[in-house]
Amino acid sequence: MNMSESQIIERLRLAADHAGLASSRVRLGMGDDAALFAPRNGYQTILTCDWFLERTHFVRGLHPADAVGWKCLARAVSDIAAMGGEPKCFLLSLALPETHTGRWLGEFLAGLRRAARKFQCPLAGGDTTRRREVLVNVMVVGEVRTGQAVLRSGATPGEVLFVSGSLGEADWGLKLLRGGKRRLRNDPAVEKHLYPEPRIALGRWLSSRKLATAMMDLSDGLSSDLPRLCAASKAGARIAAAQLPTLRLTRTPTERFDPMALALNGGDDYELLFTVRPSKVRLIPTYFQRIPLTRIGEITPGRKLKLVRPDGREEELVSRGWDPFWS
Amino acid sequence: MNMSESQIIERLRLAADHAGLASSRVRLGMGDDAALFAPRNGYQTILTCDWFLERTHFVRGLHPADAVGWKCLARAVSDIAAMGGEPKCFLLSLALPETHTGRWLGEFLAGLRRAARKFQCPLAGGDTTRRREVLVNVMVVGEVRTGQAVLRSGATPGEVLFVSGSLGEADWGLKLLRGGKRRLRNDPAVEKHLYPEPRIALGRWLSSRKLATAMMDLSDGLSSDLPRLCAASKAGARIAAAQLPTLRLTRTPTERFDPMALALNGGDDYELLFTVRPSKVRLIPTYFQRIPLTRIGEITPGRKLKLVRPDGREEELVSRGWDPFWS
Repeated sequence: MNMSESQIIERLRLAADHAGLASSRVRLGMGDDAALFAPRNGYQTILTCDWFLERTHFVRGLHPADAVGWKCLARAVSDIAAMGGEPKCFLLSLALPETHTGRWLGEFLAGLRRAARKFQCPLAGGDTTRRREVLVNVMVVGEVRTGQAVLRSGATPGEVLFVSGSLGEADWGLKLLRGGKRRLRNDPAVEKHLYPEPRIALGRWLSSRKLATAMMDLSDGLSSDLPRLCAASKAGARIAAAQLPTLRLTRTPTERFDPMALALNGGDDYELLFTVRPSKVRLIPTYFQRIPLTRIGEITPGRKLKLVRPDGREEELVSRGWDPFWS
Repeated sequence: MNMSESQIIERLRLAADHAGLASSRVRLGMGDDAALFAPRNGYQTILTCDWFLERTHFVRGLHPADAVGWKCLARAVSDIAAMGGEPKCFLLSLALPETHTGRWLGEFLAGLRRAARKFQCPLAGGDTTRRREVLVNVMVVGEVRTGQAVLRSGATPGEVLFVSGSLGEADWGLKLLRGGKRRLRNDPAVEKHLYPEPRIALGRWLSSRKLATAMMDLSDGLSSDLPRLCAASKAGARIAAAQLPTLRLTRTPTERFDPMALALNGGDDYELLFTVRPSKVRLIPTYFQRIPLTRIGEITPGRKLKLVRPDGREEELVSRGWDPFWS
């Protein structure tokens, strides 16, 4: 198992080649000092990077290696989707214990390869080193037509807030996994926690049709992410609890399973949060490629964030999502 | 000191703005889902990423925070220089203990800012999280005119091998630091270890004049890096020990201070190793902007790597440079 750095890089290169990940636009892959990418005329390049660290973002023994491989790329690609762009290639920075250079690495690469194929985002290069714990950093390069990128800062009071999918599902999946429900792999919540699907097609559709004025992906939970969109847009928001697309399971709410709290504060959903001008709301369908799109509130003047409870009471929306410096 | 992730990102953003790092080509910096970069027509984008990890690449207490900031960017920019490109912007992934969000972060950002100004490579975005140890990953975006990138694979038998600068200096600087010579900050070897200068202008000159057929930067040591260039070029090499630009200090060689071993195996120099066609050798000056350029050997047919000792004996060149999976 005592592999050298060169052998590990060779394994990554083979994994990339065998998967047919080589792309004509990525001119040089693993093995040189850097990768070359040929940008298209009329497009801007989108750049994003994301940590995915053992103990912070995943747990050895709890999260299968192929899910670590899938999710490290899916999370970063979600940031490209949230700008309305298309992923083009990625760089992988990987630090591994020696014990993980065999079977674990094979499964990790299988998950990564599956995600790279699904998102049409080939591996273009990277850096590896040895470490007691598994550290991953993924950097994704995407493209968007010049002028079509949807920023967080574009929302205006009066515009309508939408989210894709259902909220709190991935966090519930994590709770099931933590409760020892590893056999529940087919549970859709566990599936969503392990193998999230970035909303690439939806993001592109909203940006190319100029339907979304502001957009971001929900990674830390609505109550933590919505304030970021509002701060960037210098506005407030009011959301209606009764309209949130919460989990609907045949299960009585408990302290642990509280669909409303999960929808407000659960992280890792990678759904899109976006704003739409009132005149264009009728152009937003109920479903986009089988993903529900739900109107949850509106942008308001001032900087306050309000939550309207089902009984009509209005209260301040408090950020209770994930923050690595507080958790 | 208990900062939230948003507060840390805000500090990074301020550091970027105050340094005048904003660039008209980097359309959107820290704070959105991703950064936007406008590529130029006729240019390819160069992408590279580099780990810089506590205990693996630097040591708390030994390496000042501002040197960690400088060097994490310098190392990654060196990969752009080694392709003959120009750095354009970078993304910073930073994981920190809570204890490091105050003074340490301030000094780290000061070093990073100084490097970003010097290399004309503004901060464009990033990701932060909390961790017991300091983890850094830097991703640099560069540009090179289409067709001008110098790869590792372009060397042909008969071509002449050159290196820039002197070899083994940074490794000697590390040994001085480890020996408790922290007061020796003005020692050029310690300076080179802490604040390496990527050879951006040299790399661009060699690529734009089409003088180098293959090129890479020396990060792990000549005896480990030369085999990589040769493997990529499907060739061998013969280097002359007597011609190596070793350290020349007024000091008797000892086991610890062996200039030849340092030049062959010392890492972290970030000098350029490049090959030149015999007909163009006369175009390579002895100095480029005060950096010596030294002819050290030639590319040979076959795959063997030979070292000619000063007494004329030829022996196999054995890789004794840095490999994180063996050290």
